[in-house]
Amino acid sequence: MKWWGWGAEGERYELSEPKRFWMWLEERLGTLPRVSRVASLADIPLDPPRLSSPDLVSLRELCGERGVSVDAEARLTRALGKSYVDLVRMRHGAVPSAPDAVVFPEDEEQVAAVINLAADRGWVVIPFGGGTSVVGGVEPLPDGRPVLTLDLRRMNRLLSVDVTSNTARVQSGISGPDLEAELDSRGFTLGHFPQSFQFSTLGGWIATRGAGQNSTKYGKIEQMVVSLRMVTPREVVETPAVPAEAAGPSLLQCLIGSEGIFGIISEAVIRLHPVPRYRAFASYLFPDFLSGAAAVRAMMQAGIRPAVVRLSDPEETATGVVLRSPARLSFRDALGRWCLRWRGLDLDRSALLILIFEGERALVTAARRQADRLQRGGLHLGSRPARLWMRDRFLHPYLRDELMDRSVLVDTLETAAAWERLPKLYSQVRQVLSESIRKTAPGALVLTHLSHAYQDGASLYFTFMARQQQGQEVEQWQLIKDAATEAILDHGGALSHHHGIGHLHKSWIPRYLGPQGTAFLQQLKRQWDQQHIMNPGKLIDV
Amino acid sequence: MKWWGWGAEGERYELSEPKRFWMWLEERLGTLPRVSRVASLADIPLDPPRLSSPDLVSLRELCGERGVSVDAEARLTRALGKSYVDLVRMRHGAVPSAPDAVVFPEDEEQVAAVINLAADRGWVVIPFGGGTSVVGGVEPLPDGRPVLTLDLRRMNRLLSVDVTSNTARVQSGISGPDLEAELDSRGFTLGHFPQSFQFSTLGGWIATRGAGQNSTKYGKIEQMVVSLRMVTPREVVETPAVPAEAAGPSLLQCLIGSEGIFGIISEAVIRLHPVPRYRAFASYLFPDFLSGAAAVRAMMQAGIRPAVVRLSDPEETATGVVLRSPARLSFRDALGRWCLRWRGLDLDRSALLILIFEGERALVTAARRQADRLQRGGLHLGSRPARLWMRDRFLHPYLRDELMDRSVLVDTLETAAAWERLPKLYSQVRQVLSESIRKTAPGALVLTHLSHAYQDGASLYFTFMARQQQGQEVEQWQLIKDAATEAILDHGGALSHHHGIGHLHKSWIPRYLGPQGTAFLQQLKRQWDQQHIMNPGKLIDV
Repeated sequence: MKWWGWGAEGERYELSEPKRFWMWLEERLGTLPRVSRVASLADIPLDPPRLSSPDLVSLRELCGERGVSVDAEARLTRALGKSYVDLVRMRHGAVPSAPDAVVFPEDEEQVAAVINLAADRGWVVIPFGGGTSVVGGVEPLPDGRPVLTLDLRRMNRLLSVDVTSNTARVQSGISGPDLEAELDSRGFTLGHFPQSFQFSTLGGWIATRGAGQNSTKYGKIEQMVVSLRMVTPREVVETPAVPAEAAGPSLLQCLIGSEGIFGIISEAVIRLHPVPRYRAFASYLFPDFLSGAAAVRAMMQAGIRPAVVRLSDPEETATGVVLRSPARLSFRDALGRWCLRWRGLDLDRSALLILIFEGERALVTAARRQADRLQRGGLHLGSRPARLWMRDRFLHPYLRDELMDRSVLVDTLETAAAWERLPKLYSQVRQVLSESIRKTAPGALVLTHLSHAYQDGASLYFTFMARQQQGQEVEQWQLIKDAATEAILDHGGALSHHHGIGHLHKSWIPRYLGPQGTAFLQQLKRQWDQQHIMNPGKLIDV
Repeated sequence: MKWWGWGAEGERYELSEPKRFWMWLEERLGTLPRVSRVASLADIPLDPPRLSSPDLVSLRELCGERGVSVDAEARLTRALGKSYVDLVRMRHGAVPSAPDAVVFPEDEEQVAAVINLAADRGWVVIPFGGGTSVVGGVEPLPDGRPVLTLDLRRMNRLLSVDVTSNTARVQSGISGPDLEAELDSRGFTLGHFPQSFQFSTLGGWIATRGAGQNSTKYGKIEQMVVSLRMVTPREVVETPAVPAEAAGPSLLQCLIGSEGIFGIISEAVIRLHPVPRYRAFASYLFPDFLSGAAAVRAMMQAGIRPAVVRLSDPEETATGVVLRSPARLSFRDALGRWCLRWRGLDLDRSALLILIFEGERALVTAARRQADRLQRGGLHLGSRPARLWMRDRFLHPYLRDELMDRSVLVDTLETAAAWERLPKLYSQVRQVLSESIRKTAPGALVLTHLSHAYQDGASLYFTFMARQQQGQEVEQWQLIKDAATEAILDHGGALSHHHGIGHLHKSWIPRYLGPQGTAFLQQLKRQWDQQHIMNPGKLIDV
């Protein structure tokens, strides 16, 4: 991944009409001057590693010569994740602290040996997969102790596949594409496609309790894991590998989401699905967000489960049009727009719903037809918008880099709430975002979509943009983030639906979980990590 | 409920041909003499309550005059659950210990006040719902301290229904029929129908991590709970009420299944479904259990989710025929049997699969058709066997009482395992059951069904019968239970799929969860119940 932004060098989100897009954006946010960033990693100041030569010898005895690095590049590229504040700091060359060494274990035994050594010597241990955390999950926080970051990407093997039970045992450091390629060659898929899919790892998905874009059919990661193994400073914990059980509180559901603070996930048994034989795409246009949300709700409550459900509000739909449409419309598209206007709809002022169904053809066809009947007030637009979204779905984050080059603050917030609470949550978070942004910038752009739908509620995902306050980028962001998070909690939203807690959401945990819920996390932390060496400062204060 | 058996007085399982059934059974188990039981509760010896008058005054101040009982009947009927060993002891009038008082709180405040008083005075507190535990979950174990059993059935109100989110907030003491009646009048169902449905309570289902007969569509209880409130000796714990979250380890999934050892569940928010508009029944006959299991597996892995999946092995199918069929077959039935034999199948030597689909008509029809295509090697028998099972499904446990009247040891075991492990698990548990039974009795009957199917595995449910060893009924049972449980764990089965742990499965917890999993439960216990007053002796040793 690029050290200063998202994804692979050379890859980018192609704006169809860049000039038109930037004009459109400046109309909303004010003038957007280009800003510079440090030219290379070598320009970023970095303290020397706080590890002695004998320390490094000990580590190399455990993980081999190539298994330990104190290179500036290795350390700096694992110093931060990929949140907006991470990228601001990286671009400014202001990396507050980096790991003292990066260790690349090849198996569970090496992970255990390194954790044991760290416990003996009083070092901190941080697990690192794809490094795509947007909540500060992998950042070493100021701490007097030396920090080892364990990069788990060498632990990327599919250990076994059970083709009868449709499960696989996999090492935690495998990336999304590697995992899906291995599974695909055997006729399977996991069905987990988070936005970070191309870079993030199985262990990261589990540690953060993530969700993929197809979660409406396949569930969140916590439903996909049969069992896992975690190396803790105490010993290796393994949960029973059974499809379901009634044997007390769920140890598995306490290790999932633990964000590295109890130990490091070394491997997991995951549930697989046959590669879907058939896929159906549908798109609908609604006059407003809430009527679209009502249609999604009706579909979920009737037992229909598309893989992808994504309803963009009018602001997001209009932005999508600006991003994707050429300045001069084809005759077909112009005719389409004219037809829409004739029916009282406009791509600039409507809510776009896309649905993608997959599985056995007969089941998909029945579900798709039944879903179609429930889109009351929605106009069927055919399959094209859904297909376009599918094609571009991993490209969207690249746009953030171009926005940041042009002094745009751009970040996302996500939550989930009961259907009954969604309308107010939607309007209040939008309002608070706009208001708090306007305290710091001339204009605001707030886009929202609903995704990850459930029978009892759904996730809301907000993207907000403003002109950066030069020199105060982090403070500006914090003010907006605080206000929006308070609004989410005030209106019954989850503190996070799939990004996790890390250190950016940590201060709200006591409010969100209450004193007993907070004590519960602290108690578990004490059980497995009494010395407090595992990813300290994340998830909870101890 | 009858104090000496299952269910309501007067209700029973009608044998169509009792004489034929008993002859058939005696051919297998040996002669089955009638055995007597104590005539009435008044014949059962009971120690006086270990509570002083001032103690009772304090309790009555909290819960009212009618809210506290030290009657022998009240105490004895809450001294045991409904396992085979419970009924053996009850029938013999040998109740080892009963609660000293039964308390009937009306709301969460009263529960909290009673727990606080108990903590002050050093009393034990046991929650009691329907009292249908078959794992010793509600039995006061020998303990020097006075014991209060909190009967929660006055806490039986539906507090609110959110018709937008399809959720309801309900007090924990509501029974299955009361809950479903309340929901039905509003057009909803929870979809949770355990065998104990007519008597058990919402709180009991959650505390034991139960499953209902329709779990293949609706999930186990842990998927049905959005959030809950639990009164602990420390304070009330409440989990966030959101459809999904990524906020660390799941507190909710640690309270579900806690079997009263942390505190008492006072209320829960549960997910509802619209009352299904349409139902489809199907039955198939397979030449053997494993070919039926393969068909169920194919269906689950193709994404088809009937509400009920129940595959009886040849022994269970044949027993069902003896129980249900009249001695003289109707012309239609005789013709049917002749046709089956002509196709190489026989109701006495085949595996019967019943499927019940429910939901929206179009979706049900598509799923039912697709399922039909996957029943390779199965002969479609029409809907009648499935309809008959549905009609009688809550009557089966009544038969146990008649069997015990005729000196039959009859108990059930349940587990769940990955598909890959099921064939061996099935054959080994059956073999171990037969072998261990034959050490104690002339013959054995072992019936098995597969139910609660998942994409990665299924539950197996074993019913075993033998002639009782008079005077050694409990020892005989323990020998068989121990052997079968070891076989289950040896072959990768869950220690329990839906009965729970209680004190009958407790001794296997260290083996099943491992040292760290066991320590995890002990650590949570310490957090909420340092004095160890909540349902001691259940789930784990501390």
